[in-house]
Amino acid sequence: MSASTTDNAAVHGASAQPGSVGLVEPQTARIDTPLLLDCGRRIESYDLVYETYGELNERADNAVLICHALSGDHHAAGRHRPEDRKPGWWDTAIGPGKPIDTDRFFVVCVNNLGGCKGSTGPLSENPETGRPYGPDFPILTVRDWVNSQHALMRRLGISRWAAVTGGSLGGMQVMQWAISYPEAIAHAVVIAAAPKLSAQNIAFNEVARQAIITDPDFHDGRYAEHGVIPRRGLMLARMLGHITYLSDDAMRAKFGRELRSGKVQYGFDVEFQVESYLRYQGTSFVDRFDANTYLLMTKALDYFDPAAEADDDLATALAPATARFLVVSFTSDWRFSPARSREIVRALLASGKSVSYAEVEAHQGHDAFLMPIPYYHQVLRGYFDNIARDLTEEGRA
Amino acid sequence: MSASTTDNAAVHGASAQPGSVGLVEPQTARIDTPLLLDCGRRIESYDLVYETYGELNERADNAVLICHALSGDHHAAGRHRPEDRKPGWWDTAIGPGKPIDTDRFFVVCVNNLGGCKGSTGPLSENPETGRPYGPDFPILTVRDWVNSQHALMRRLGISRWAAVTGGSLGGMQVMQWAISYPEAIAHAVVIAAAPKLSAQNIAFNEVARQAIITDPDFHDGRYAEHGVIPRRGLMLARMLGHITYLSDDAMRAKFGRELRSGKVQYGFDVEFQVESYLRYQGTSFVDRFDANTYLLMTKALDYFDPAAEADDDLATALAPATARFLVVSFTSDWRFSPARSREIVRALLASGKSVSYAEVEAHQGHDAFLMPIPYYHQVLRGYFDNIARDLTEEGRA
Repeated sequence: MSASTTDNAAVHGASAQPGSVGLVEPQTARIDTPLLLDCGRRIESYDLVYETYGELNERADNAVLICHALSGDHHAAGRHRPEDRKPGWWDTAIGPGKPIDTDRFFVVCVNNLGGCKGSTGPLSENPETGRPYGPDFPILTVRDWVNSQHALMRRLGISRWAAVTGGSLGGMQVMQWAISYPEAIAHAVVIAAAPKLSAQNIAFNEVARQAIITDPDFHDGRYAEHGVIPRRGLMLARMLGHITYLSDDAMRAKFGRELRSGKVQYGFDVEFQVESYLRYQGTSFVDRFDANTYLLMTKALDYFDPAAEADDDLATALAPATARFLVVSFTSDWRFSPARSREIVRALLASGKSVSYAEVEAHQGHDAFLMPIPYYHQVLRGYFDNIARDLTEEGRA
Repeated sequence: MSASTTDNAAVHGASAQPGSVGLVEPQTARIDTPLLLDCGRRIESYDLVYETYGELNERADNAVLICHALSGDHHAAGRHRPEDRKPGWWDTAIGPGKPIDTDRFFVVCVNNLGGCKGSTGPLSENPETGRPYGPDFPILTVRDWVNSQHALMRRLGISRWAAVTGGSLGGMQVMQWAISYPEAIAHAVVIAAAPKLSAQNIAFNEVARQAIITDPDFHDGRYAEHGVIPRRGLMLARMLGHITYLSDDAMRAKFGRELRSGKVQYGFDVEFQVESYLRYQGTSFVDRFDANTYLLMTKALDYFDPAAEADDDLATALAPATARFLVVSFTSDWRFSPARSREIVRALLASGKSVSYAEVEAHQGHDAFLMPIPYYHQVLRGYFDNIARDLTEEGRA
């Protein structure tokens, strides 16, 4: 931030909306403990960029980790500059008095390793070559991310998260936390997730990857060295992604079959509103996301399958977990439908875990997990209120 | 065909399987009656390539028109050469003793105008320039196709189809036939169709179009003049299409999450079986389909909306129809779900039409309409048997 502290404070007072965490500043943790990855490679040291909201209490037991999804980052709440058009990606849920209440919780959100928003990733310099990693950045898994987040947790002086939460790919990280570090997570809040991708999910990822990889500007991932970006491929990948994030109903409600100009053009320019929306989403994504990171993220999704190491039995895979679970799904989500969340719930029950499940009536599709749907936020608020109450009682005891 | 008649006959005898129409040869009709298109342009004359199976009876009342879907053509049954690996696209349903029985019906299937298998289309010479039309070929609608098929019908000496049938985009042509030429169609068999595309359907088409149009080898549609094909774009469009043709269940049954090599590669080569399948479908399509035709076909899909001219009331739009209807849908079809077929059925009932409806339990998704699913074929067989019986009785009367 270039503004002085005084300016910041003034701006903070002026811009902070009720329930907003106000202006926030990303921080960077340099982790020097080598990380051994699932692919067999090793990262000697790496940066993790993160944001925090609220205050860590004396007992350091009120920390909540937010795990981001495919195109997310560490900027989950508040604004970086007063003039920012949009706040962080989960600002509706995180803030003073909000479901994840920063008056009570110390909230941490990390840009995942391999990301493109400051954490070590394909855009970073490869110490072995002195050039950007690009396509040489190792393929990562959800477990690799959780291991790196665990290193950050220790750096922050936290030994146990009051809760770990996230939607979609974020929810998969939550499950992995509960399995990999049972002692370090009290509550696991898994939203709009799945225990593994279906063949159809993998198929969509594969089309997105092929769109990027076959773009002549991709140059085997070394596009930066050629001074270009695989714009077409990344745009197509994002357009396709958006179709899977929205339900058919949500698209109908949002766009119907409305024509942008009111009449049929008989041509290939934008005609229907939905085309205009998708092209905008696609082209604006290109300027804020890295293609190699996008590829890595889709692979981490494809690979996630904790049951695979437990004879395909999810209950066995989840057996080590000691966290209490809240699982949330949305009726119109066809990317990770309620049926997929119920698979998780059934496995948790079969494994004797404590689990609450909410299936939220919502027409927004997969994107619903980002939206302030009243019943959904009531469920989150109620659950996190209980966590806060337990912490207070433990503090008194 | 280069083989002599004698050879053909010998080959026919040897290769014809029970129920097969055997070796078939496409024919070409030159239509010189100008066609006024919905877009306002006019085609002075055009070729339609078609195939026929069975014999037209003396009363010329046993003709059945088959309308093809997005990537289909006139080759619906039999083989062109004995060594052809695959028969026509609906060979399971058309042939002697099959549901659409060529011992009783004279079956006609046309490559639609704008196609790339011999009918006048983007690959044809534009008489105004002496070069291929390419992107200058007019945008077509389902109604334009029906009008051109009507011209062919007259050419063949048929005044009324015993039935018009087709799946998907083919089913839309059937509906348009019933509306545009009520006197010329006795039965309308509408399979796996919808009264119009949803915003999601349009969105998938738009991603496919953008994949083609943004391919640097597309050259604004003049790729032929540059001696190239927009391979990448057409491959992506086809891969994406295939995801929407298969159900999630069908993909699970067909591929699951199986790894081609049996173990995780941590790379971007083909890993999962479903990736291998999609890449094969995508790359093989490129060599047999024209990109400009693909674009035209998706636009015809987007534009189809007969209710739009009747204050968005489908029943009013269907009011002119005098045909009897059979509507068929498949439970796992998420491209044009049973709910979309039920919209058609409800509108037909509201409009006082005779309609039978079958919702076929099938896990194959949209593709089910091409498959010999026993209950589905029983329904078709029963319906066409009744048509044949009525014809025989009318013939006697």
